[in-house]
Amino acid sequence: MPKMYITRREVFSASHRLWNPGLSEKQNIELFDKCANPNGHGHNFVLEVTVVGDMKNESGYVMDFKKLKAIIREDIISKVDHKHLNYDVDFLKDKIPTSENIVRAFWQVLENKISGAKLSVIRLRETENNIVEYRGEE
Amino acid sequence: MPKMYITRREVFSASHRLWNPGLSEKQNIELFDKCANPNGHGHNFVLEVTVVGDMKNESGYVMDFKKLKAIIREDIISKVDHKHLNYDVDFLKDKIPTSENIVRAFWQVLENKISGAKLSVIRLRETENNIVEYRGEE
Amino acid sequence: MPKMYITRREVFSASHRLWNPGLSEKQNIELFDKCANPNGHGHNFVLEVTVVGDMKNESGYVMDFKKLKAIIREDIISKVDHKHLNYDVDFLKDKIPTSENIVRAFWQVLENKISGAKLSVIRLRETENNIVEYRGEE
Amino acid sequence: MPKMYITRREVFSASHRLWNPGLSEKQNIELFDKCANPNGHGHNFVLEVTVVGDMKNESGYVMDFKKLKAIIREDIISKVDHKHLNYDVDFLKDKIPTSENIVRAFWQVLENKISGAKLSVIRLRETENNIVEYRGEE
Amino acid sequence: MPKMYITRREVFSASHRLWNPGLSEKQNIELFDKCANPNGHGHNFVLEVTVVGDMKNESGYVMDFKKLKAIIREDIISKVDHKHLNYDVDFLKDKIPTSENIVRAFWQVLENKISGAKLSVIRLRETENNIVEYRGEE
Amino acid sequence: MPKMYITRREVFSASHRLWNPGLSEKQNIELFDKCANPNGHGHNFVLEVTVVGDMKNESGYVMDFKKLKAIIREDIISKVDHKHLNYDVDFLKDKIPTSENIVRAFWQVLENKISGAKLSVIRLRETENNIVEYRGEE
Repeated sequence: MPKMYITRREVFSASHRLWNPGLSEKQNIELFDKCANPNGHGHNFVLEVTVVGDMKNESGYVMDFKKLKAIIREDIISKVDHKHLNYDVDFLKDKIPTSENIVRAFWQVLENKISGAKLSVIRLRETENNIVEYRGEE
Repeated sequence: MPKMYITRREVFSASHRLWNPGLSEKQNIELFDKCANPNGHGHNFVLEVTVVGDMKNESGYVMDFKKLKAIIREDIISKVDHKHLNYDVDFLKDKIPTSENIVRAFWQVLENKISGAKLSVIRLRETENNIVEYRGEE
Repeated sequence: MPKMYITRREVFSASHRLWNPGLSEKQNIELFDKCANPNGHGHNFVLEVTVVGDMKNESGYVMDFKKLKAIIREDIISKVDHKHLNYDVDFLKDKIPTSENIVRAFWQVLENKISGAKLSVIRLRETENNIVEYRGEE
Repeated sequence: MPKMYITRREVFSASHRLWNPGLSEKQNIELFDKCANPNGHGHNFVLEVTVVGDMKNESGYVMDFKKLKAIIREDIISKVDHKHLNYDVDFLKDKIPTSENIVRAFWQVLENKISGAKLSVIRLRETENNIVEYRGEE
Repeated sequence: MPKMYITRREVFSASHRLWNPGLSEKQNIELFDKCANPNGHGHNFVLEVTVVGDMKNESGYVMDFKKLKAIIREDIISKVDHKHLNYDVDFLKDKIPTSENIVRAFWQVLENKISGAKLSVIRLRETENNIVEYRGEE
Repeated sequence: MPKMYITRREVFSASHRLWNPGLSEKQNIELFDKCANPNGHGHNFVLEVTVVGDMKNESGYVMDFKKLKAIIREDIISKVDHKHLNYDVDFLKDKIPTSENIVRAFWQVLENKISGAKLSVIRLRETENNIVEYRGEE
């Protein structure tokens, strides 16, 4: 059975602020610099979710892209798009919303939603130049 | 004297909220929908500033790109990057920070800073799919 | 009143065949070469629709991008996406579906649907390297 | 000997229709939705072929990109570009031309054509948002 | 007769050095900074040539893209690709090879080669962020 | 501890010439073709450096992108941007500056500069279509 990796790309527009409440203001500014701006800032985050699985003979699909898209839109995009990641998103509460924490939270949300294939990689492009990737390794 | 249009591209990451204080909450939500989210949201705004002028024989330049870049970074990018456009930016105070109002405010900031060439177009890509362009026409 | 140009980008996937029934097979192949392949071929067409109008004070908008997007999706994209442009599209019947004929047909469809602003340019990127633009000039 | 992965990108424009002749019309439409359109639709498929091998001292190359390009163009692109993948391509006959089946067929075509290096990954971007990757795993 | 603008995009890889022999070394370095590096530097220049003309009924074309591509490749790309623009290109001799001078020289080369349509714009993207455009205005 | 891969993208503009002094002129031209042009040619090289490491709880970072960017800019970009790779760069002396040799030299430069994370992949896009990747495997 041929094994394939299929990737769905989605974009969402959100704001966030990097701030660790366990640190002093001085430490936060030293650590997060302009990302610590009190009123926050934002990005068009580009999300790429890769799942891996066997291609099925009947469909020639690993998994229907329409289903993968529907899951990502329902469980992720509808919750983060046009939101403030520090205040508006249940599964990011009490986390510093760095790209690293965001992809890991997305992994936990999606992990059990995908059927007939397995999550392989989640990649988040915060800007054209800064990209974070998580493969479920702990 | 050959006339040339030169364009400098810069990117900034900011948050904003679309809200007209002169309208009711219901009207604002009808008008701005998810862009009215109280905690705001954000984008990687892609800015393109075009100036037009004669090419100088001595340099083969209309205007040194390094100077155009320096002006845009000092007068625009340093003031909007990693900021909240509703609260943190002097020249956007009391404006609904739509792309339309943003490019017009940028025009007013830059208009008298460019020497040896003239502002021609300011274009702002809020997302991959939504782009606003202003040519100084009123 | 500030005048602004706003552009909405949409993508559709369609097939077509370039063939002029008034010409012989030999002439068609000479003229259209591999684009005359009997079973057709296809593209991800990238469509950019630009409208121009005055910015309204109440909204800071020329025209709500959500409305522009809805018009383009309803009147254009739903009719051409995942279709064969020679056989499946009413407003392209009896036309050789070159990018030139396509953008002109799109113009005729959209011209009277836009309110509060005016069609300015329709641009179609058939491939990364071949782009056609129509500004309503005849 | 340093081991390197080199990737050549090519684009081709083709049409296809997703349809399993072993299923009923109703089942096909349920499964493939708008991709089952009888007259087909098309894409600019972006193909990325990665080969892996040792860098040779004499050339500083794993494999000459010009040779890799020539192989891909002769054995793949010339056979699928400006074609209908269901009807015009020998090595896709009797396959549902999903991206999954396409990359696997490409693998079988290229596998024995590459010398001095080994096929590592074939990636196909059907649209900006849907990508399939095959690494030869069965 | 509908009037259309068609654009062909090509890429070439070349090196150059910005240096005005009429100025002193100090003046050159002040003016051109790192672009004056004696051994030169290089770019993947992205060239976009736009021609404007009437769409012909017989073909649905303003001008066959294959012909436009062939002209650009024969008269421009073959002469500048993988070359040093200061030393290897006849039509750039004795010019400081800024993007401004390059697009103007390209205009002079192409102006009389296009038939059935007229040169409208030549655009050159030296980097992602620096773009020069010439419309034949003097 | 969650393990993450973070990638920083940088662009530099440089020229080079492919030439093996141990071969004859005829052999060099056969091997390197237009890349052997005596006066050289150039590219906008797109560099992507990926490091892998554990996410730290205090910062939500694997490694501060600002630090990764500073290291790459100081140790790589400042030495190759607007330079001729054959003559101006210490760590490329006596190497044929193919993308393969360049990424390997970059690896050796960066390997000991990254702290709190490990180099994982260096990828270099010489053009849109030719990409080389090194993972430290010998």
